[in-house]
Amino acid sequence: MAQQVIFTDNPAQALDRLVEEFSPKGICMVTDSNTADCVVNRLRNESKLMAEVPVIEIAAGDENKNLATLTSVWEAMEQNALTRLSLVVNVGGGVVTDLGGFAAATFKRGVRFINMPTTLLGAVDAAVGGKSGINFRGLKNELGVFREADAVVISTHYFSTLPQSELLSGYGEVIKHGLISSSEVLRQVLDYDISSGDMKWLQAILSDSVEVKRKVVSQDPYEAGLRKALNLGHTVAHAVESWAMHEGKEVPPHGVAVAWGLVVDMVLSHIRLGLETKWLNRVSCYVREYFPAPKFSCGDYPVLIELMRHDKKNTDARNINFTLLKAPGEVELDNVVAPDEICAALDIARDLLGV
Amino acid sequence: MAQQVIFTDNPAQALDRLVEEFSPKGICMVTDSNTADCVVNRLRNESKLMAEVPVIEIAAGDENKNLATLTSVWEAMEQNALTRLSLVVNVGGGVVTDLGGFAAATFKRGVRFINMPTTLLGAVDAAVGGKSGINFRGLKNELGVFREADAVVISTHYFSTLPQSELLSGYGEVIKHGLISSSEVLRQVLDYDISSGDMKWLQAILSDSVEVKRKVVSQDPYEAGLRKALNLGHTVAHAVESWAMHEGKEVPPHGVAVAWGLVVDMVLSHIRLGLETKWLNRVSCYVREYFPAPKFSCGDYPVLIELMRHDKKNTDARNINFTLLKAPGEVELDNVVAPDEICAALDIARDLLGV
Repeated sequence: MAQQVIFTDNPAQALDRLVEEFSPKGICMVTDSNTADCVVNRLRNESKLMAEVPVIEIAAGDENKNLATLTSVWEAMEQNALTRLSLVVNVGGGVVTDLGGFAAATFKRGVRFINMPTTLLGAVDAAVGGKSGINFRGLKNELGVFREADAVVISTHYFSTLPQSELLSGYGEVIKHGLISSSEVLRQVLDYDISSGDMKWLQAILSDSVEVKRKVVSQDPYEAGLRKALNLGHTVAHAVESWAMHEGKEVPPHGVAVAWGLVVDMVLSHIRLGLETKWLNRVSCYVREYFPAPKFSCGDYPVLIELMRHDKKNTDARNINFTLLKAPGEVELDNVVAPDEICAALDIARDLLGV
Repeated sequence: MAQQVIFTDNPAQALDRLVEEFSPKGICMVTDSNTADCVVNRLRNESKLMAEVPVIEIAAGDENKNLATLTSVWEAMEQNALTRLSLVVNVGGGVVTDLGGFAAATFKRGVRFINMPTTLLGAVDAAVGGKSGINFRGLKNELGVFREADAVVISTHYFSTLPQSELLSGYGEVIKHGLISSSEVLRQVLDYDISSGDMKWLQAILSDSVEVKRKVVSQDPYEAGLRKALNLGHTVAHAVESWAMHEGKEVPPHGVAVAWGLVVDMVLSHIRLGLETKWLNRVSCYVREYFPAPKFSCGDYPVLIELMRHDKKNTDARNINFTLLKAPGEVELDNVVAPDEICAALDIARDLLGV
């Protein structure tokens, strides 16, 4: 069965329809402490079929995306007598869809599940693509499986209540999808005024953006090749996130780190593959206008380079691999870039971002 | 990539060939305390490529097929720096292939793995078919995934050192595969003298038997329908195992319980679907000749019936479902059988088995 991705103004109704279609024996919801009171209660009130469904609530935050929380979700599934014909509905951000998806995919060797992302980042990054998992021994997403949700229900209504920083975080991934898609999609993405709060326009952009990801994933579900296109911006982003964590600095929201990484990758793409300067300029102007400036300085480069070497995506610690672009939509995988070149690109990117 | 199943007299050489073909970055072996000293050490000595490979040893026994053991295997994989391009080799009985397969399938969202079953039951039942998992909160195989091993290496040499009871346990599943396959395969299976120790003949039978399972699984990997054929004998077998566990009696080896269950299912198949008496007689004579007699009496029927109602395979606790046969190779799924009929069949089966 192909995965359904539903964009809707009425998530309760969409969910009811899916439940009717799936006709599960037993349902439960997984959510977190940030989402339970507002979103989940409203969903249960507005839905015809979810009012009595038990809710498994986990503590919010990436630090709780661990084996102890996963075990508690498995236990709750057991207590709620879920069978292989049951349905799990994950309502929340990326932590909920990642952990709830992994729990469902492994309970009785796999129960169907629906993801309802409540953040823009969750909608564009976590809910689609089949990557589920938890952190383990301090390593991000170290345990998990590839398994698509049976359906994804996306409503931009949920995002209108989010702080601007949450929207930005998701929008970093939207820009990435524009870059790997085409000039047309990229133009549309870079025309959007994030501060406008225009959710209707955002929904149109988001729908394209999710479609880009789905297309890439469907051609390479287990990340053997093409899917690496989705790593654009992420070599630098992961290094910056780890660097902030280790240095005890504030960790930037994921999509913000991705936005910085995209600017670095556009610089490298220009130098290495001749990407036109107009695209480099348009992307860096957009990031400079809406996103905060990066906090790392040239003194941090050696640590950042070392972290890039140990990225899970690297299969050989001697090389640092980048996904780069010849042009919007023309992706080149596995570009080995030397440390010197990376430092030069970091310098130029910081200049472009007005640091 | 299609799964390779290799029957061999030289497992070390077969493994070396697979390692060359897969050219993994990093290997580790998972085994248990029963298997480490004899089989694994010999394998490492005879292999050109496995001598230095780290061994993750778990405690033997189904009671250790749990989350604590799984966590220790994940930790060891981490410590041995396995990446997504690495390879895990599971060497042991069903506990090792089930737990090691689950660990590999979830580490970094999936590392390739090879199963090398060292028991007949493991070869015929656990190593092929993609069911991995662990017990959880007292429930068998409650957590796990469906994922085929990338290769399975089977050597009957390992079985010649096993006690007769271990061979019997595996042979229960071999008879089952004969029944769901065809009259020809079934005849061959029922012609074999288990006490002969003829491993060459056993290998030929086993090769057919594994092929039967592979064919069924490939047509229905997630147990949506056809795969239920493999549940033949298992409604009664699981109930008898649970009954023995709850009553504090000795739990029969799995394949022995399956053999009893097959006789009950042949009785029901004769009554309900007109299976010829000659097949009922041949199967029950064979089981009576080689297998120990069942220990339950008619006073235990109510408990057994109750346990059948709560079997994981039942999707509705009001009905008890049986997989039955019209003839060898002609399987009928989802036969709802009333408690009275089940009791009658248990009586007849016990008679046939000389109780």
